[in-house]
Amino acid sequence: MQNIIRVDMSNLAVTKESEPDEYQLLGGRGLTSRIVSREVAPNCSPFDAESKIVFAPGLLTGSLAPCSGRLSVGAKSPLTGGIKESNVGGTAGQVMARASIKALIIEGKPSGKERYVLEISSTSVKLRPANDLAFKTNYEVGEFVASEYGDKTPYICVGPGAEHLLAVATVAVGDMEGRPTRHAGRGGMGAVLASKGIKAIVFTGTGRQKLPQDDQGFKDVVKEFAVDLVNTKKALTRFGTAVLVNVISENGAMPVNNFRHGTFDDVDRISGETLAKNCHDRGGKTGHGCYAGCVIKCSNIYHDISGNYLTSALEYETIVLLGANCGLRDLDQIAELDFICDNYGLDTMETGSALAVSMEGGMLEFGDFQGMKEMLHEMGRGTITGKLLGQGATVVGKTLGVGRIPAVKGQAMAAYDPRALKGTGTTYATSPMGGDHTAGNCLPGRTGLDDHKPEGQVEASLDAQILTVLCDNLGLCIFVGPVGSSLPFFTRLVSCYTGNRFTGEELMSLGKNILREEASFNEKAGISKYQNDVPKFFRTEELHSGLVFDVDSRELSAIFE
Amino acid sequence: MQNIIRVDMSNLAVTKESEPDEYQLLGGRGLTSRIVSREVAPNCSPFDAESKIVFAPGLLTGSLAPCSGRLSVGAKSPLTGGIKESNVGGTAGQVMARASIKALIIEGKPSGKERYVLEISSTSVKLRPANDLAFKTNYEVGEFVASEYGDKTPYICVGPGAEHLLAVATVAVGDMEGRPTRHAGRGGMGAVLASKGIKAIVFTGTGRQKLPQDDQGFKDVVKEFAVDLVNTKKALTRFGTAVLVNVISENGAMPVNNFRHGTFDDVDRISGETLAKNCHDRGGKTGHGCYAGCVIKCSNIYHDISGNYLTSALEYETIVLLGANCGLRDLDQIAELDFICDNYGLDTMETGSALAVSMEGGMLEFGDFQGMKEMLHEMGRGTITGKLLGQGATVVGKTLGVGRIPAVKGQAMAAYDPRALKGTGTTYATSPMGGDHTAGNCLPGRTGLDDHKPEGQVEASLDAQILTVLCDNLGLCIFVGPVGSSLPFFTRLVSCYTGNRFTGEELMSLGKNILREEASFNEKAGISKYQNDVPKFFRTEELHSGLVFDVDSRELSAIFE
Repeated sequence: MQNIIRVDMSNLAVTKESEPDEYQLLGGRGLTSRIVSREVAPNCSPFDAESKIVFAPGLLTGSLAPCSGRLSVGAKSPLTGGIKESNVGGTAGQVMARASIKALIIEGKPSGKERYVLEISSTSVKLRPANDLAFKTNYEVGEFVASEYGDKTPYICVGPGAEHLLAVATVAVGDMEGRPTRHAGRGGMGAVLASKGIKAIVFTGTGRQKLPQDDQGFKDVVKEFAVDLVNTKKALTRFGTAVLVNVISENGAMPVNNFRHGTFDDVDRISGETLAKNCHDRGGKTGHGCYAGCVIKCSNIYHDISGNYLTSALEYETIVLLGANCGLRDLDQIAELDFICDNYGLDTMETGSALAVSMEGGMLEFGDFQGMKEMLHEMGRGTITGKLLGQGATVVGKTLGVGRIPAVKGQAMAAYDPRALKGTGTTYATSPMGGDHTAGNCLPGRTGLDDHKPEGQVEASLDAQILTVLCDNLGLCIFVGPVGSSLPFFTRLVSCYTGNRFTGEELMSLGKNILREEASFNEKAGISKYQNDVPKFFRTEELHSGLVFDVDSRELSAIFE
Repeated sequence: MQNIIRVDMSNLAVTKESEPDEYQLLGGRGLTSRIVSREVAPNCSPFDAESKIVFAPGLLTGSLAPCSGRLSVGAKSPLTGGIKESNVGGTAGQVMARASIKALIIEGKPSGKERYVLEISSTSVKLRPANDLAFKTNYEVGEFVASEYGDKTPYICVGPGAEHLLAVATVAVGDMEGRPTRHAGRGGMGAVLASKGIKAIVFTGTGRQKLPQDDQGFKDVVKEFAVDLVNTKKALTRFGTAVLVNVISENGAMPVNNFRHGTFDDVDRISGETLAKNCHDRGGKTGHGCYAGCVIKCSNIYHDISGNYLTSALEYETIVLLGANCGLRDLDQIAELDFICDNYGLDTMETGSALAVSMEGGMLEFGDFQGMKEMLHEMGRGTITGKLLGQGATVVGKTLGVGRIPAVKGQAMAAYDPRALKGTGTTYATSPMGGDHTAGNCLPGRTGLDDHKPEGQVEASLDAQILTVLCDNLGLCIFVGPVGSSLPFFTRLVSCYTGNRFTGEELMSLGKNILREEASFNEKAGISKYQNDVPKFFRTEELHSGLVFDVDSRELSAIFE
């Protein structure tokens, strides 16, 4: 039996509740969305005392299931104003699950500007005053955790971006080396946590592995699934997600200069091959995992040209949105910006898109690396300009009078142009999360459809969204591939874990219900189904390939009906 | 027969269409909302080429009806993202109506940054290149018009705030002295006009008075209505709208320091009596009309202590939102800020509220007059800080992490606290226009209800909204009082004007349909009925009187059903 831990920051009270039966099948996103829907008023301000932030490891997080260490963070988003879940790797999810914590709910708000560290062991949950950590960067907090609690102690923390209440602020999680390089990046979850006065959550003790009801059956599936993943995900292990640089540019879906172009003329300088070479030549690493039990290991440790640590987990989305889409062509420059974002706790995607939009609005020139660095420091310092950029692409674009803002429901799109990758475009348009690839990415070749054509994309996106919400519910990394062929693995894992036999249809129906619950929260927050669309310019402005986004808007608004 | 003039700024083409029969009863807001609903895509960007801005004099504007000189300006709003109508006095509405123009639609967009003056006479409509007027202030444009076209030539223009595409940018209209002191202030209509490359619209020639079908009947009603208004609106004539300072503070509904308090301890220094005394003692004027035929004359000309012209039409909303709500206590200071706003073309209400919210967010201190002046100049210059403030209270508050943002659907509330004036609060919550008093103000004593109690406010607000939309349709100033007892005057005026007999119910039904059409546009723009509410803090944070806003939120979301 697992527990729900509730921390009320208004009176610093910690309470523990047993897991209700009805949450039996829920974990991760399914659980954060359920709790946010039930307990948070859709029309509250995300920073109100009555707003809450929920952490939930996936249903299988803490078990032996491969790639199952994800931790979901959910709240009403200061970026979109709707419900949000952002999930993250790193070492916190597993240790939290193994401390028998089904969900951690942080609610209320201190009356002043106090900061706290929440200390969680297998037997206790305590708040420790930590005002001296105010406005410390994530790497500084990581050092504090190492020196106070021991090297590689799992932790969650927020940087100064969150303390300035930026809507792009992340929740950082320590990686296998104890660095704050894993981020629940999207939707400003960090700002919500910071508004509660929590600077860090530290996990001492290791707890014990989650035991499935049918242990042997579970081990059999795990083994089979792991072998399948190792065999099919080799490119991800070798090149990381940057393997997509060539793929997406060839597909004509790579955003360049604020979505002006769909291909990049300098792909070799930012490709997965270049990234892997730099890592190996300079003493860094590819094939680096987020947590124990990851068999894909798509992460990396990236060193600078002198062989010194520069950043970790330089990913496709960062490379393109903070790089090519801002006119940068140098992987080392992008890596440096990635480090600064991680250190201040800024979502590289929303921040990159906001900077690209600011370039379109004349604040900076495309390709101005020094200017971008200065802007990131303004965000870290919380100047007026920094706070403006920290509201993300939509607010920056509105403020500068930019018509071409590549965002849906207030959230910037990921690094796939919806005109050329129409399944992912459909997910941007319709996901309750806003312009989000992690809500149902339809990568080239994945759906069996012609990505450049509108036919069938609504059904394909809906399938991908449901399978993805299942991954997010189970705590599986989406790189296991939320595709139809993984459903049997999901079904067998859940059946063995719970000891009850489930069908694929039953799991799909669970996923659909989670999506509907999220859409219903949004509706009551004033975000109607008519916001299920991409910005108009994607429908009228052609890519060089001649493509526009042409999925029927009536189908988009009716997708969850 | 009147005409619809269409100016396409993409190719500088002017076309003239005869008035369609179905527009027979429409004018002002009814007509701008109808045309925007029909011709503008709800999901377009307000600054797209396909966005349009519509000017329409009221149905009775240009006739002898008292106080009937209003001109409506409608578009998709860059402030709210929804449909917007903002109407204005000054001399342009009448001359436009008398030039047989039922509506002027400006559409398309020049490819570059060209500026034009649109010259309208009774016989021709022409575009004149005017790049040298770029970023000229409204008073400078007023001087240009006087020197080029003659003293007191009626005109419409936009200031630098509009050219920076600020969402608080106004459309200015010349007053009886030829000064740009009348503003269609709300919703950023100025930015939409500026985005089309139009810097000014100038009306040469006088045209001819609109002739009612039943001329004698019309004259009889006009006389009766005018006598009634002169007798009942004496306080407005004597003190201007500032007569409300004492009334509203006594009611406990005056916003002070970003809606922290409902009464002001220094009312005498900013009251209508003080304003009138300053005007008379210093060579200014009260009892000043917007246009010929106004019998209320609530405007004023305000001189500084040395007797030099400072500003005109210093109004209650400005005095409170740019004054008391920002912690100012000096009428001369407020008058100076009013002049600066008029000159740059900034809505004093949205700007005042944005400044108060910025004070709550720590950018300025409450009462910092010099700081406020500097911020207004930043807005006029279009700096990053100026552009941020120019997005209005909602964006400023979001950016600074302020939880207490007194706005609905992106538009700042007027100078009546919804907790103490619950009918007006209901109008803020439900009007398709956002937090707008001009959409149905329920002033103390007007509804016959206890303003401090929730009972009956939804019905009262709906009535006020329908009567107000009728005023806006007819071109009558809302100071004629959109109350049940004026309906017979409206009915008789319309019946005599059109030559067809209308009942009060028929007119009320017309008004209701206009409101529904606006709400329907908003719905398709993604603004759902669940946004029909005041911000949560008004429901939880008590005024000193103990009052909170407690009108049932389900009734609010269902008001137009």
